[in-house]
Amino acid sequence: MISVSEARVHLLELVSPLGTELVPLAEAAGRVLADDVAARRDQPPFAASAMDGYAVKSAEVELHAMFKVIGEAAAGHGFDGTVGAGQAVRIFTGAPIPDGADFVVIQEDVTAKGTLITITDAPGDNPNVRPRGGDFKNGQTISAPRLLTPSDIALLAAMNIAEVPVARKPDIALISTGDELVMPGGTPGPDQIIASNTFGLKAMLEGLGAQVRILPIARDTHSSLRTAFSLAEGADLIVTIGGASVGDHDLVGEVAADLGMERSFYKVAMRPGKPLMAGRLDTSAMAGLPGNPVSAMVCGHIFLAPMVRAMLGLPPLQEVILSAPLAAPLGQNGPREHYMRATLTEDGQIRAFERQDSALLTVLAEADALLIRPPHDPPREIGETMSYLRLI
Amino acid sequence: MISVSEARVHLLELVSPLGTELVPLAEAAGRVLADDVAARRDQPPFAASAMDGYAVKSAEVELHAMFKVIGEAAAGHGFDGTVGAGQAVRIFTGAPIPDGADFVVIQEDVTAKGTLITITDAPGDNPNVRPRGGDFKNGQTISAPRLLTPSDIALLAAMNIAEVPVARKPDIALISTGDELVMPGGTPGPDQIIASNTFGLKAMLEGLGAQVRILPIARDTHSSLRTAFSLAEGADLIVTIGGASVGDHDLVGEVAADLGMERSFYKVAMRPGKPLMAGRLDTSAMAGLPGNPVSAMVCGHIFLAPMVRAMLGLPPLQEVILSAPLAAPLGQNGPREHYMRATLTEDGQIRAFERQDSALLTVLAEADALLIRPPHDPPREIGETMSYLRLI
Repeated sequence: MISVSEARVHLLELVSPLGTELVPLAEAAGRVLADDVAARRDQPPFAASAMDGYAVKSAEVELHAMFKVIGEAAAGHGFDGTVGAGQAVRIFTGAPIPDGADFVVIQEDVTAKGTLITITDAPGDNPNVRPRGGDFKNGQTISAPRLLTPSDIALLAAMNIAEVPVARKPDIALISTGDELVMPGGTPGPDQIIASNTFGLKAMLEGLGAQVRILPIARDTHSSLRTAFSLAEGADLIVTIGGASVGDHDLVGEVAADLGMERSFYKVAMRPGKPLMAGRLDTSAMAGLPGNPVSAMVCGHIFLAPMVRAMLGLPPLQEVILSAPLAAPLGQNGPREHYMRATLTEDGQIRAFERQDSALLTVLAEADALLIRPPHDPPREIGETMSYLRLI
Repeated sequence: MISVSEARVHLLELVSPLGTELVPLAEAAGRVLADDVAARRDQPPFAASAMDGYAVKSAEVELHAMFKVIGEAAAGHGFDGTVGAGQAVRIFTGAPIPDGADFVVIQEDVTAKGTLITITDAPGDNPNVRPRGGDFKNGQTISAPRLLTPSDIALLAAMNIAEVPVARKPDIALISTGDELVMPGGTPGPDQIIASNTFGLKAMLEGLGAQVRILPIARDTHSSLRTAFSLAEGADLIVTIGGASVGDHDLVGEVAADLGMERSFYKVAMRPGKPLMAGRLDTSAMAGLPGNPVSAMVCGHIFLAPMVRAMLGLPPLQEVILSAPLAAPLGQNGPREHYMRATLTEDGQIRAFERQDSALLTVLAEADALLIRPPHDPPREIGETMSYLRLI
């Protein structure tokens, strides 16, 4: 058996960034910026008014000063002339500051009479001018890799980036294996259950930025598994679920080996989770997850999520390990790293659920964290600080 | 001027849950469960083995006991007969426990010779049996409303729910207004800038579960605005950006009033944000956001996000207000509630950015939090606890 971190290192060796594609800006949110992009202009592209008011010369600004209004500057419609001594231009937020002016007296500080204005409230020192390029300058870059947020999308728009170079989405094929499985909506026989892992993993992996295909369930025969692998051809990552140790046989391993897979490892010292295998099959990375529903989902969080991030060109997520004080004591941990289904209390403590059987999807659905216990972790008291992964 | 919380109450009065649609399970992640759903079966559907081993009668389990193996039970293929005294059935994880047996001796505790097995390691008290219905029982429900996570999807699959009743996605039409705006990819004139708000808001609102259309930019004329409103017809929510106070005119308000909108309010005591308006236009709710890029995005977080949640049938998100100690002091706040662009430090403190101008998209893109300051909040020292909203 190997440790969780050794297994993760092996898995990450199987994948690499997938290259770049251009997508329209409106479809770039949640994608990973793959190349640095440079602003195509200054923002603002001109010195602009930050307020509604009157553009004047700063040297003339003082209480009771009077100006003649000679024109108007609105957003999209600047004032073409020049502001001279004793002159003002009516100006609105976002409009270009006219030549000759360098100060905007806000309209609340002014009394207007016809085309004359008087400063009737102390205007302060703030010129209310946004300098040209004050937000960003032509050529200023956003650095890749970067998971693009809504704010990033707004910024890319303002930079006039209509098409965005993003990492290609990993193509992941999910194969669940087992004679006991029936697809949701089917009618299970007396010894059968509904396939749930592929659906949960698809949702998880798509949320991380992958494109996921659920392949037909593979039966516990060589030919059925071979068919499933052939349908998965061309995927960046093939994930099998279950069957890694079916009874006395290791059907998935055998078929994968027949197809030329070099297996990297087999068993990982974790709960829930073992057995687990991985390797390469032609151009695809391949990972074999255990069939227990909770084990499969936890392995998805622990192993597949970092692989997806790596394929997207994102750095590993070490920093996502959080910590919180225990809300209830825990006994001694065994020899395997244990990812306990847990919940965060309102006052920020963490509490492991009583029932940790890896078959319990109801418990997983209530969990919002996986409490991490290293191998042989000693008994823990209330208030001790424990590491956890946040589930979303 | 009205307060942020008053404004939010008004806005929430404009919307209500939108009703339900059925979607295939594979498309239900991230949607909001709209009706309670009930499991269509017990899980497991039979008492099942939790381990690989041998199914026997618990009364016979003791060190050195010997059994004759009379058959095999695998997942999907139960054993049809009954386990009698002195008998055992080879069994694998997930297989039905055969009639007559109620205990699984794990294979590591057994020595096998032909069809005879002997218990050679103390088997302990755990029967390694998952009772029928131990995860969930037929008819057990998942309660609506609930934002469906990957784990929920796995659970729904196991319950054999192939189609899921979810809240219809809010249809949101975004109209940016202003003669100064050009779409990304266009060639702006000397007084023009690139429309960024609609792109950022689309990404944000789609991430919250809405379906968003960006309409053509409306020019600062009655006819152009009227055209835009006609294109938005049928939307659950129409959002205009900018133009709520264009110079001395309030074009959006005038045109909306012509079209029959009753305006609910106009100015909100917040930074960044005012002016802001809202009302109803036929069957649509309507919200008018300010045109400053950061103001529009912050108003999206503060006002539109709760509206989307309400249309999806989700409860308000009071609990999402977090708190953290200040990393740098803050001066006195003015009369308006201030949502300061801020960042969380590695050790969990919060630091507001120096530059809080509502035109700075570069600052917003670096922010991962909005630090919330109530009106007239006094000066704050390092270490004082401040409220914030997490930006994602």
